[in-house]
Amino acid sequence: MPIEIPDVVIDRLPIYARALNLLQRSGREVVSSQELGAQLGVTPAQIRKDLSYFGRFGKQGRGYSVPRLLEELRQILGLDRDWLMVLIGVGQLGRAILAYGGFAPQGFRIVGAFDADPGLVGQEINDLVIKPASELKLSLTQRPADIGIVATPAAHAQAVIDDLVGCGVKAILNYAPIAAHVPPDVHIKDIDPVLSLQSMTFYLKGQLAVAGVK
Amino acid sequence: MPIEIPDVVIDRLPIYARALNLLQRSGREVVSSQELGAQLGVTPAQIRKDLSYFGRFGKQGRGYSVPRLLEELRQILGLDRDWLMVLIGVGQLGRAILAYGGFAPQGFRIVGAFDADPGLVGQEINDLVIKPASELKLSLTQRPADIGIVATPAAHAQAVIDDLVGCGVKAILNYAPIAAHVPPDVHIKDIDPVLSLQSMTFYLKGQLAVAGVK
Repeated sequence: MPIEIPDVVIDRLPIYARALNLLQRSGREVVSSQELGAQLGVTPAQIRKDLSYFGRFGKQGRGYSVPRLLEELRQILGLDRDWLMVLIGVGQLGRAILAYGGFAPQGFRIVGAFDADPGLVGQEINDLVIKPASELKLSLTQRPADIGIVATPAAHAQAVIDDLVGCGVKAILNYAPIAAHVPPDVHIKDIDPVLSLQSMTFYLKGQLAVAGVK
Repeated sequence: MPIEIPDVVIDRLPIYARALNLLQRSGREVVSSQELGAQLGVTPAQIRKDLSYFGRFGKQGRGYSVPRLLEELRQILGLDRDWLMVLIGVGQLGRAILAYGGFAPQGFRIVGAFDADPGLVGQEINDLVIKPASELKLSLTQRPADIGIVATPAAHAQAVIDDLVGCGVKAILNYAPIAAHVPPDVHIKDIDPVLSLQSMTFYLKGQLAVAGVK
C-alpha cells in the first residue's frame, strides 16, 4: 500500500505532524483543514486529499481530533520510536549537526561520528568520541544504524554513501553538494542550501524585471 | 509568464544546471535527456517537459547543446549575476554557514552577519565583523540585500523574518524550525533536516514491516 502514495504527500506529512504537535501543546482538541491549511500555506483540499490516502480522519464539518490525527501520523511516519544515526564528516558542518538540538527530541539519535582526519579522531563532542572513517564499516557491522548523515567534502561523499549502502543503511541525509547514486531501495534526502537559493533567484529576477531594474 | 510555471519545475532547474556544469567541465558538448535523466533520477520525459516551459532547446534525436542549455538556465534562474545576502544568527549553525564554501562560487555573497549576543558582536569571521541584531534594519536601509539567511533560535525567527520583509527582502533561507509566515510576494525556503528525516522514516518503517521486524 505505501508504494502507491506519492513522495510529495509523504514529504508533507511531517509538516502536518509538526503543526498538530504545536496545536496539542497549546491545548487544542480539534482543528479544521481550513485552519491547518492557513497555518501551513497549503489548501484545505490538499490536506484532505493527502490524509485520505491513509483512511478516514475527522468527520465532515467537525474538523480533525488533534490528538488522534497526531497519533495516527506519528505511527504512519514511524515517529513513535527512536532511530539510530551515524554521522560521517565532523568538520564545521558536522560539528553544527552534532550540536543541533532538534534531532534528539524527535527520536533521532546520533550514536556514532566518524572522520578521516587523524587530528579529529579521539576528540569528544557531545559525549561522542570521533572514530576514524576507516572503521565505519566495521562499526556498522557491530552496531547497525538506521540512517547515515553525510557531511564530508564533496569528493569523498559518494564513497562514504557506497559504504553506508553496503552496510545495509537504507536512509541517508546528504549534506555534500553531489548528485549521489543509491540503489532504488535506499532513500536519500539532500540538504543543499545552494539549490534552495538558486530556485528563489528565479523569482527575484522576475521581480526585478517587473520593477524595471534589469 | 513565469507565473504559470509550477514551483516544482523551478526547483528542478538548478539541479539540471548543476549537472550541465559538471558535464561542461568534463568537456562534454552534447547530452541527451536520457543521459541527464539517468544521472539525476528524473525521467527523460520530465526533463523535456520542464524545459519546454522556457522554449525549444535541443533538436529531436540530437540531444541538448551543453554550453547553450547551461547558459540559458543560468539566465532563467538569475545565476549570471551576484546576489547579496545577510545572515542573522551566528551561533554554531551560523558559523558553519559563514564557513560554507559553496555559496560564493555560485554568486551568493554574505555581506552582513548579525547576532543578538553582545559576546559575539564585534568578532570577525571570514572578513565579516558581526553586528548587533538591533542594527539589522538600519543596516539594510543603508545597504540593501537580496536574500536573508535566518539561523536564529526558533523563538526569535519570525520576528527576524518580519524585520527582513519590512526592509524589502524578497527571499529568505530559513534554518529555524518554524512554519514562518511571509507575504505572498516573499519567497522562503526552509532548510530543515528533521522534516527530511521524518519523511524517510515512513519508508524505513515500511521496509521493517516487510522484513517482519515490526
